[in-house]
Amino acid sequence: MTEKGKVKVHMRIEYDVLKETIKKAMETAGLSEENAEICATVHAQSSADGIESHGLNRVPRFVEYVNKGWVNPGAELELVSAKGAVENYDGHLGIGIVNAVHCSDRAVELAKIHGVGIVALKNTTHWMRGGTYAWRIAEAGYMGINWTNTESCMPMWGSDEPGVGNNPFCVAIPREDGPIVLDMAMSQYAYGKLGVYRLAGKELPYPGGFDKDGDLTSDPGAIEKSRRILPAGYWKGSSMAVVLDMSAALMANGKSGFNMDKENRGSCTGCCQIFIAYDPYLFGSKEDIQSMLNERVFAADHSHPAEQGTPVTCPGERTVQTRKKSMKEGVRVDEQIWSQVQEIADGNLNVTDISGK
Amino acid sequence: MTEKGKVKVHMRIEYDVLKETIKKAMETAGLSEENAEICATVHAQSSADGIESHGLNRVPRFVEYVNKGWVNPGAELELVSAKGAVENYDGHLGIGIVNAVHCSDRAVELAKIHGVGIVALKNTTHWMRGGTYAWRIAEAGYMGINWTNTESCMPMWGSDEPGVGNNPFCVAIPREDGPIVLDMAMSQYAYGKLGVYRLAGKELPYPGGFDKDGDLTSDPGAIEKSRRILPAGYWKGSSMAVVLDMSAALMANGKSGFNMDKENRGSCTGCCQIFIAYDPYLFGSKEDIQSMLNERVFAADHSHPAEQGTPVTCPGERTVQTRKKSMKEGVRVDEQIWSQVQEIADGNLNVTDISGK
Repeated sequence: MTEKGKVKVHMRIEYDVLKETIKKAMETAGLSEENAEICATVHAQSSADGIESHGLNRVPRFVEYVNKGWVNPGAELELVSAKGAVENYDGHLGIGIVNAVHCSDRAVELAKIHGVGIVALKNTTHWMRGGTYAWRIAEAGYMGINWTNTESCMPMWGSDEPGVGNNPFCVAIPREDGPIVLDMAMSQYAYGKLGVYRLAGKELPYPGGFDKDGDLTSDPGAIEKSRRILPAGYWKGSSMAVVLDMSAALMANGKSGFNMDKENRGSCTGCCQIFIAYDPYLFGSKEDIQSMLNERVFAADHSHPAEQGTPVTCPGERTVQTRKKSMKEGVRVDEQIWSQVQEIADGNLNVTDISGK
Repeated sequence: MTEKGKVKVHMRIEYDVLKETIKKAMETAGLSEENAEICATVHAQSSADGIESHGLNRVPRFVEYVNKGWVNPGAELELVSAKGAVENYDGHLGIGIVNAVHCSDRAVELAKIHGVGIVALKNTTHWMRGGTYAWRIAEAGYMGINWTNTESCMPMWGSDEPGVGNNPFCVAIPREDGPIVLDMAMSQYAYGKLGVYRLAGKELPYPGGFDKDGDLTSDPGAIEKSRRILPAGYWKGSSMAVVLDMSAALMANGKSGFNMDKENRGSCTGCCQIFIAYDPYLFGSKEDIQSMLNERVFAADHSHPAEQGTPVTCPGERTVQTRKKSMKEGVRVDEQIWSQVQEIADGNLNVTDISGK
């Protein structure tokens, strides 16, 4: 969205204003009021949590996908088959966020009955921020695990062309003091992050891919050119990505990343997503489990810091701080994208070719 | 086991001879014939698969733990509680391999009934090679997912002292052409691997930790000294390690890595392990699912290689090749450790202080 070489300018917008504007943009794009509310809440919360890439920034592209017919805003989630604690849904290429929210909630309902609930969703579309659903399950009081497959965007280890998705994997541990949440794509850095560093004229903190000569590099521009982003942990992230892809497609009886590659539509179009909710107090008392978790987090957070003044934290803890700040001071947004979304909301901008695909 | 600075010498031993010798060592240590058979098979298979570190090499330390009373060879796995597809067991600090084999098999039995089976095991001991159980579930025709927590051996990201376990995570996808198996510890390299490189006088292929000055390094000796091994994917492996720890302890109502640290016994003593089996044909036909998986693997394996002549493979595929070679030519073993295990088997060596703890 931002032109190459142009530095982004940020501003802060009140959460409610942000959410209502996104909601209006969604309704203008053809979503029902109910679905627009769900989507706007998830996008606004992601920005409020500091995940701009899948918050406000992603709204224009979502609208573009709707306009292109890659996302069908009128599709309804369909229960295909079920066995006890496990259910299989077809998303019919409907709204990714709406499908994923309903499947997360259904996993929680199943866990209430069976102790565990597993929902395997196929033929859905981009769920935006993966962590949304693990957080949601944890906020409902359950442990959440969810992952998705995607089309290929990362080379398999030992290859120099994209061959596997970056397939995010998320786990949320419910705690009364705030959940601990892993939200981890299998690439070391997202392409979006490379752009941020390049525009700021900075090197990546650690090598993030290979240059065109096959050398490991921290130069974000060189990696954008080669398309050889680095799997997190080298061969480890590549291996985990491919099994996450296969497991999602197997569990949901849906498409693998390879099947999506063949169809060559928008990002995550037709993907599979898995949602697991687990009752944290199935075998232990609430008091014992919460005390065990709190001691674990306390010990981790009090590890001796490598750099004085930079305390260690567990994943998700800093997100809670960012969220608090956003609610108090307004949500940080990219000025240009904010203008664009306002124009979409007002019906003055018809987005049909943002992704260039 | 090998003295510092001494280069290891390897030889090949026929699989059956290896297994029977380990079995005899296990019986000499006090295991029943039945349990010795289970343990010997798992150790010998690990070596045959090329995972020496948790195959033959680990036998003396296991015997040491039995001799010290950290593993109780007479303990029986106990069903604590159950709800539908989920069962909770207490391992009573019995034999890690035996407990884990029984829990894997039980997960498969539950999956036969419920479509999915989840066994959460607490108070168990080291299961040796994590991938053993995912392979086992896949060989029974089910998708397997298993993970364990461990005592702290790796710094949290941003810390300079061990604060979290390297908590292996394993996934096996059943395929008629051989399973695809992820067996991934959360550290970039195991300490054992650092030793192998140091003894060979080699640098690690990629940075594997920090030296005493806090700089990222590929020098294995410098990392052994600082005890700052690198989480795979930097902050990603650290975050995943801590949620794997918490999720295992929560699901099994057992000890976290922090609880194990306080008790300060042998490696993994008292840990929690999770075993999940999922029916791959719950929602799709065998033909469709196998065809989807085969296409996915074929495409990944035919990614353009970064180096000509070095083909890309999915995890587990090369293991099958190594296993075939071991069965044909004999299993590769460290000569010195092989002698040691033979002496244990013959009752000529009483191991009580190998780990120095």
